[in-house]
Amino acid sequence: MTHVVEPGAAGHAAARWEADGHRLTSSAQFHQWWDERLRAGGFAVERIPFDQLDTWAFDPRTGNLGHTSGRFFTVEGMRVREGGHEVRAQPIIHQPEIGILGIVVKEFDGVLHCLMQAKMEPGNVNTIQLSPTVQATRSNFTRVHKGGGTQYLERFVGPDRDQVLVDVLQSEQGAWFWRKRNRNMVVLATGDVPLAENFVWLTLAQVRELTRRDNLLNMDARTVLSCMPFALPDDPDAVGRGAFGAALVRSYQDAAPSGRGFALHTQSDLLSWFTEAKTRCEWTGRLVPLDEVAPRTGTAAGTPAGWSRDDHEITDAGGRDFRVIAVEVAANTREVTGWKQPLLQPHGQSRAAFLTRAVDGVLHLLVRARPEYGLLDQVEMAPTVHLLPGQDLDDVAEPFLRELLRSGAVTSHYDQVLSEEGGRFLNALTRYQILEVDESFPLDVPEHFTWVTVRQLTDLLRHGHYLNVEARSLLTCLYSLC
Amino acid sequence: MTHVVEPGAAGHAAARWEADGHRLTSSAQFHQWWDERLRAGGFAVERIPFDQLDTWAFDPRTGNLGHTSGRFFTVEGMRVREGGHEVRAQPIIHQPEIGILGIVVKEFDGVLHCLMQAKMEPGNVNTIQLSPTVQATRSNFTRVHKGGGTQYLERFVGPDRDQVLVDVLQSEQGAWFWRKRNRNMVVLATGDVPLAENFVWLTLAQVRELTRRDNLLNMDARTVLSCMPFALPDDPDAVGRGAFGAALVRSYQDAAPSGRGFALHTQSDLLSWFTEAKTRCEWTGRLVPLDEVAPRTGTAAGTPAGWSRDDHEITDAGGRDFRVIAVEVAANTREVTGWKQPLLQPHGQSRAAFLTRAVDGVLHLLVRARPEYGLLDQVEMAPTVHLLPGQDLDDVAEPFLRELLRSGAVTSHYDQVLSEEGGRFLNALTRYQILEVDESFPLDVPEHFTWVTVRQLTDLLRHGHYLNVEARSLLTCLYSLC
Repeated sequence: MTHVVEPGAAGHAAARWEADGHRLTSSAQFHQWWDERLRAGGFAVERIPFDQLDTWAFDPRTGNLGHTSGRFFTVEGMRVREGGHEVRAQPIIHQPEIGILGIVVKEFDGVLHCLMQAKMEPGNVNTIQLSPTVQATRSNFTRVHKGGGTQYLERFVGPDRDQVLVDVLQSEQGAWFWRKRNRNMVVLATGDVPLAENFVWLTLAQVRELTRRDNLLNMDARTVLSCMPFALPDDPDAVGRGAFGAALVRSYQDAAPSGRGFALHTQSDLLSWFTEAKTRCEWTGRLVPLDEVAPRTGTAAGTPAGWSRDDHEITDAGGRDFRVIAVEVAANTREVTGWKQPLLQPHGQSRAAFLTRAVDGVLHLLVRARPEYGLLDQVEMAPTVHLLPGQDLDDVAEPFLRELLRSGAVTSHYDQVLSEEGGRFLNALTRYQILEVDESFPLDVPEHFTWVTVRQLTDLLRHGHYLNVEARSLLTCLYSLC
Repeated sequence: MTHVVEPGAAGHAAARWEADGHRLTSSAQFHQWWDERLRAGGFAVERIPFDQLDTWAFDPRTGNLGHTSGRFFTVEGMRVREGGHEVRAQPIIHQPEIGILGIVVKEFDGVLHCLMQAKMEPGNVNTIQLSPTVQATRSNFTRVHKGGGTQYLERFVGPDRDQVLVDVLQSEQGAWFWRKRNRNMVVLATGDVPLAENFVWLTLAQVRELTRRDNLLNMDARTVLSCMPFALPDDPDAVGRGAFGAALVRSYQDAAPSGRGFALHTQSDLLSWFTEAKTRCEWTGRLVPLDEVAPRTGTAAGTPAGWSRDDHEITDAGGRDFRVIAVEVAANTREVTGWKQPLLQPHGQSRAAFLTRAVDGVLHLLVRARPEYGLLDQVEMAPTVHLLPGQDLDDVAEPFLRELLRSGAVTSHYDQVLSEEGGRFLNALTRYQILEVDESFPLDVPEHFTWVTVRQLTDLLRHGHYLNVEARSLLTCLYSLC
């Protein structure tokens, strides 16, 4: 049983949790359709040298790599200083314009369905992944666009859009993007919605279930799904997953009027903890010309930060972080003709894990206040552990976590490899984990951690600047465990 | 009668609205005490040339004006570009560290009192103003501090602090500060609180009442008071101020479970309207060396942006915006020995007004989504009209507002001149107004405006990035009309 939280005053009829009979698309039908998309949607991605990028070039004055239109994104340099010293310098993607990641939802037989898209992106390890209805930069759908319009976009913007249920700016990878945010939207359609070729209707439960497959549900879909404050589970007894499942369902319950509810800490305490974490940040990051951070090989500038660029790539000397390369995309569908663009390729896989623990029968997540140099507001709430490519357990700074993860004294409830944004990153994979510790694990944690319920995080997702993109991904995965 | 919203789970006893008999300090006592402070607290502020600033200097490489310790703040340049063109260049104050603006509250005879401070600041037109208990930059209370500690600071930070009721980062003037925020805090003391020399206990109603005097309650106090989500009025019938007062009290009421309550728009609609306004911003601001924006007079650089500096000031050519000068402060109290610092002096008075209108008997404020180049997240909710120094009614872009304000077809409920932050600004005065229009005024407004209740704004003040500092000041003033 699921309790539907009213998404707004317009108060559409409550969507019931679906029985199998209420699914518009059965799981078998979905997988058959998906296999067809895989066969149909092939395209080839080939590395090219930077000077074959045509409409992209390095600015002769700054070394920044950008599009000749001045739009889309640029690759620039970032310098971070703290207490008069430089603590980090690296290339970073700067994309100031805000795009839309939007899902159309609609009731069929009283059950809410999501309109999902089979979308190919050049950086995906497996060509296509399941994406939101609309996934478009402003450059895609405004001035720079050439070719057909973005399908279903009119349902999200303009005077005739559908009823807005969710509309919030959320951050993306603070390690690779400079202050990037996208508009996460959900709209409720009431009239007829014609189904276009690469789209499918799936129930919320079906979409969440797909997080249990490697590299199927893309990052953009995961973040939008995490921001849906409705259809939260509310009956722990009806769940057959034992103590963990029951504790998880309780973790979605609303707070009591006191603001505390089932949570160890009040929402006021949580906000104060977060404010405190921000005030501890004493670093400031700035964009600088890419030439300052990653000079062209063979120039007199030297490479103080350990980054350099040649004809084929921009990379760190140690090969631990990432490289920026150029690709040519040749698509074999009738809609897209092929294009060239830069991509950021991490030198390995990331790992993000939430540690969870029942407290009085209610599941709590151990959240970290994580500074990331590319975040607009410096700190967001993040998974307990997040290792970037090139990092391993030795890089976990806190002994209590390092030893726990080494010992393996945890129960794993979720362990899948999922992809990050395939439009900007090449083969960027993250191993996402949800791990449970028992009640002997201490509730007293260092100051940059705190224990929260799922509901407390869900409530904060009405606003931006709170949960980072990895935490949002894991919230969507967690939902599949109900 | 007042309903006290529980500030947190700790649930201290509800504070009653005070009758006169429950005031620890009568109004007569306060004013006598205040007059004594005025007589005792004199200090002299004198302009000096920049080269007499001792511990402040222009960086020879960038022209930025900064403290030799590298802390406090710097005066740098800002350039704003949109669509490939520069739309603004100006000097701006950069103060990345986060300070504390904090009020200690405590119940006496069941009535909540605020511990307020008579604080002198060099930029005040009238030497001292009533300030929060603590008003301190990190430089004040950490490494750079020389001299006595900040009084009552230990009640806000550290292991023995009092119970935290409010703890949120809020922005300051986006026209003059680069992404400045301060930590707005309220803590509840339960034990004994010794009263220091320049401090006084006043009830919330007494403090709010002081907004009815010109230049008495300082900006820092006003912003902290606006963030207090408790002691909201709830009985429109008990109010003797007629239809406006009753409509105002209704505007504080909680929303219905649907999220709409008494408000014209739901909170979801409001958040979506705000997100939409942010996505319309296509400008990006960057810090640049001050020399680029305001070159030294007589240098070859010229003054493309209309700003320049000489030995005594940094100013715009037209004398419309502001100037940055240096002052020497000679204090005659035993605690402070005197110091030198730069101050920003606006070339005239600002004006900020909320237009209000009853909708079905509930007062609504006409809020503007206002982009400000210095704001971290570009846009915040602002008063209906905000004219900077040098602007007049001709600068109101919207004909419906310009004509209304020219015609004077409004009822004025509040009209006072209040000061902005006296630690950074010299004689920065704003005329704050609360104006009412009748029900013939259209509810249909341009896209960068929307109608909101006071409660909707109060709820958003649990978070940063929503209300700008002028809107917060006006919310505190509005409260004095209940």
